[in-house]
Amino acid sequence: MFLFSKGASGRHVSFPIQQKSRQSQINTRGYAAGKPSKPKSVIQPFPGEFSGPKMVTTVPGPKSQELLKQLDQYQDARTQHFFVDYAKSKGNYAVDADGNVLLDILCSISSHSIGYNNPRLLEAAKSEEWVTALVNRPATGIQPSSTWPALLQKTLMSATPPGLKQIFTAMCGTCANECAYKAVFMSYQHRKRGGKPFSADELQSCMKNQPPGSPELSILSFQGGFHGRLFGSLSTTRSKPIHKIDVPAFDWPVAPFPHIKYPLEQFAKENRNEEDRCLQEVEKIIKTNRMPVAGMIIEPIQGEGGDNAASAYFYKTLRNIAKQNGVFFIVDEVQTGVGATGKFWAHEHWELQDPPDAVTFSKKMQAAGFYHNLDLRPSEGYRNFNTWLGDPIRALQAGVVVKEIKEQNLLKNVQVTGAYLKDSLFDLQRRYPNLVKNVRGQGTFLAFDLPDGAQQGKLLSSLRQKGVEATGSGATSIRFRPMLIFTPDHADIFLNILEDSLKGMK
Amino acid sequence: MFLFSKGASGRHVSFPIQQKSRQSQINTRGYAAGKPSKPKSVIQPFPGEFSGPKMVTTVPGPKSQELLKQLDQYQDARTQHFFVDYAKSKGNYAVDADGNVLLDILCSISSHSIGYNNPRLLEAAKSEEWVTALVNRPATGIQPSSTWPALLQKTLMSATPPGLKQIFTAMCGTCANECAYKAVFMSYQHRKRGGKPFSADELQSCMKNQPPGSPELSILSFQGGFHGRLFGSLSTTRSKPIHKIDVPAFDWPVAPFPHIKYPLEQFAKENRNEEDRCLQEVEKIIKTNRMPVAGMIIEPIQGEGGDNAASAYFYKTLRNIAKQNGVFFIVDEVQTGVGATGKFWAHEHWELQDPPDAVTFSKKMQAAGFYHNLDLRPSEGYRNFNTWLGDPIRALQAGVVVKEIKEQNLLKNVQVTGAYLKDSLFDLQRRYPNLVKNVRGQGTFLAFDLPDGAQQGKLLSSLRQKGVEATGSGATSIRFRPMLIFTPDHADIFLNILEDSLKGMK
Repeated sequence: MFLFSKGASGRHVSFPIQQKSRQSQINTRGYAAGKPSKPKSVIQPFPGEFSGPKMVTTVPGPKSQELLKQLDQYQDARTQHFFVDYAKSKGNYAVDADGNVLLDILCSISSHSIGYNNPRLLEAAKSEEWVTALVNRPATGIQPSSTWPALLQKTLMSATPPGLKQIFTAMCGTCANECAYKAVFMSYQHRKRGGKPFSADELQSCMKNQPPGSPELSILSFQGGFHGRLFGSLSTTRSKPIHKIDVPAFDWPVAPFPHIKYPLEQFAKENRNEEDRCLQEVEKIIKTNRMPVAGMIIEPIQGEGGDNAASAYFYKTLRNIAKQNGVFFIVDEVQTGVGATGKFWAHEHWELQDPPDAVTFSKKMQAAGFYHNLDLRPSEGYRNFNTWLGDPIRALQAGVVVKEIKEQNLLKNVQVTGAYLKDSLFDLQRRYPNLVKNVRGQGTFLAFDLPDGAQQGKLLSSLRQKGVEATGSGATSIRFRPMLIFTPDHADIFLNILEDSLKGMK
Repeated sequence: MFLFSKGASGRHVSFPIQQKSRQSQINTRGYAAGKPSKPKSVIQPFPGEFSGPKMVTTVPGPKSQELLKQLDQYQDARTQHFFVDYAKSKGNYAVDADGNVLLDILCSISSHSIGYNNPRLLEAAKSEEWVTALVNRPATGIQPSSTWPALLQKTLMSATPPGLKQIFTAMCGTCANECAYKAVFMSYQHRKRGGKPFSADELQSCMKNQPPGSPELSILSFQGGFHGRLFGSLSTTRSKPIHKIDVPAFDWPVAPFPHIKYPLEQFAKENRNEEDRCLQEVEKIIKTNRMPVAGMIIEPIQGEGGDNAASAYFYKTLRNIAKQNGVFFIVDEVQTGVGATGKFWAHEHWELQDPPDAVTFSKKMQAAGFYHNLDLRPSEGYRNFNTWLGDPIRALQAGVVVKEIKEQNLLKNVQVTGAYLKDSLFDLQRRYPNLVKNVRGQGTFLAFDLPDGAQQGKLLSSLRQKGVEATGSGATSIRFRPMLIFTPDHADIFLNILEDSLKGMK
């Protein structure tokens, strides 16, 4: 049988370990033995936050339905869950157009972090500095603001992943990944030319989209990976057909991602064998693929494709394979980055000897781009370039997010809350074994599986009607993407609702 | 010899026509016969604007150079002209870090429109509505703001190109173009399937980036076109090798763009023949290209690749060719849109019978995306999708821009100023025939050629040192991308400096 992860100690533990003393406790919520006791919150309550969900209609309610009809007249309105009254939303709670108050563990696909209408953000947004940046957005590569170098330093450069000292700023996660790919291809070819100038043949052929100027090179990605939806990024995305179908793609290779079995300690040997199988396949692709592999990209946890993750051993070995073969190693932290796993960057859990060549970010950072070192700065200016090159107003916002994470001790909060939430999910898995499977994840970046897609949809729908806004990952998983201010109290509110929903599905 | 365009009448005229009465005037600036007299401004002066450039150092001055050094420690700093003190900039004038005041006709690559620190923008930016939108950016496809349908309607939907009733919102011009391509491919394949569901083979093969699920289809573009720099858009960009080299590209076709000779009335017959040659080539590519052509994309004026444009006849015929061959017709108005040519959308000058299938926008609109009709809405939700799907704060900004254009009569201003500026450039072309060539363009979206790239660089550098911030287009052109509040007075200030610079180059 499976065991419990360390829980309320605050130290993040990747793999569950036994804590017999806790198993025997009866906690205040009246659960039977096995339910962990709730740790004390390590952060202050969000000012004026709601005490819990409050439902006044079904969701989407009549006002949201009316708005859907209105929107659908001029914009596709088939995917929206409901409309949010952002002026009324607070902290972890989204208030919808009908006045329903929902505990939000989706957060615009993992993009909110320090609370709806965070007072420090609201105050900053009214400052002259923010207003000036907002209404005078510059082409940063040509006419940057005189405040930009200092602004970058105190915001995005105050959160660099270990070992990376350079930044490329972009507009969104997809753009961040694609600009990282471009940097990789440019550096790969520069290295191949031995630093010599472009040849006449290269200069002419690239204008016809032909090699050698438009080289036949590839980015390797992994089954289940999601890296965005434009043409380069979508060629590396391997999550679901609905993301990819009908869109032309580059003939880039895909490697198997380890199928990890849970509980981990029971399947330690099988999982290691599975990881080795995938690593060998990666090496084989690099050595034999028709198009040379210039770079590879991987998420620390596959945020769209089913919340799959492997062990630190797997990622460390992968990084070494990349290095030994001259392949640039890109870590996509668009969804995992900025604290949700209990470390600022999820790949810090791996304790790599060599840093990644690029770490991409967006979402919770609000600003987007990638960190790198000088070897990914192109040989000439104007090569990896565009009009905006990011957005200073979002860098300012990132600055507040990073500061809040540090000053409000939010990583510690994620560790404490995440351990408690994970322990509690293990408890539910024990008690609802036909419904809750494969509890996994790091920090509050957690997930579990339902038996199938129908049950996944049923549970998500039930949660929403009871006041929890969540969504799936892959075909059968429920994913947790709460804000960094999600405390053990919020976890308890969520867990009660989850169990209510599970009871209704039995 | 060439003739003068209509000038101060305010009605936009694409081709110059003779105005003998004006040619004989001596205007107040003391020019010899041929210099048009300056029309009265049709708009109010920008409050508190500078009276002209004021240079206190060379550019970049010591403070900008210091900032370049600082920035270069962590971000590529080889392309920036100088650093702008946006808090001090006003209207058409950028104040740099050293206190130099420059008349800006570059405007962050054509992205500013209603003046640095426009008072209406500053006021709006401090409103609760803006602050709420800024700090709570939603995933609009999932958790949109309850204000979004009305906001869209009063902002971006108040500026729809004729005949288009739907919108897809995005983050930048590149993303707008690539999402339009995706919509084209999805609709093209949906039509090919006769509306039937995806086949099992399509669903499986797309996960391997292979046909039929990842179809071998193409977007046709034109020599000299610029449509962005990510992988799909860069495959259609045909401006300069430095934009494309070392980046893998789709094997998509390129058509010749007409080499138009100036003055137009002298080369009417040759130009028509040249346009017909290119149109025939387009038809040939559509009928014979290895990869079927699903869509074509074209700019009304090639904003990066040399400010090349053809006649309305060319574009009208092209649109018909596209329609007759089932090819979606995309007009890229990222740089030409939002008033700079004297119409809100530059393609309105063509007076098309059938609207384009998609019109993409960004830059001056601040918001980005594309307008279309229902045939480009994908068959299922979540297909043309991403986390942000645009940004409400930029839609709010677009709303102010659109309102200002209407209420402040800015299109009329562009027409009046543009005609005067173009006439005056024709005058300079007559007097400096070895330097100024091929004056062309619409509204204030104007350009002229220098004899070669060296002279282009020399003139741009001279202009900057004298207080005009500008940049080139293509290898030998100077492009004009002033704001929509650029009046005949600003034109005069610019023209004096331009002539000073030309004198120094004689």
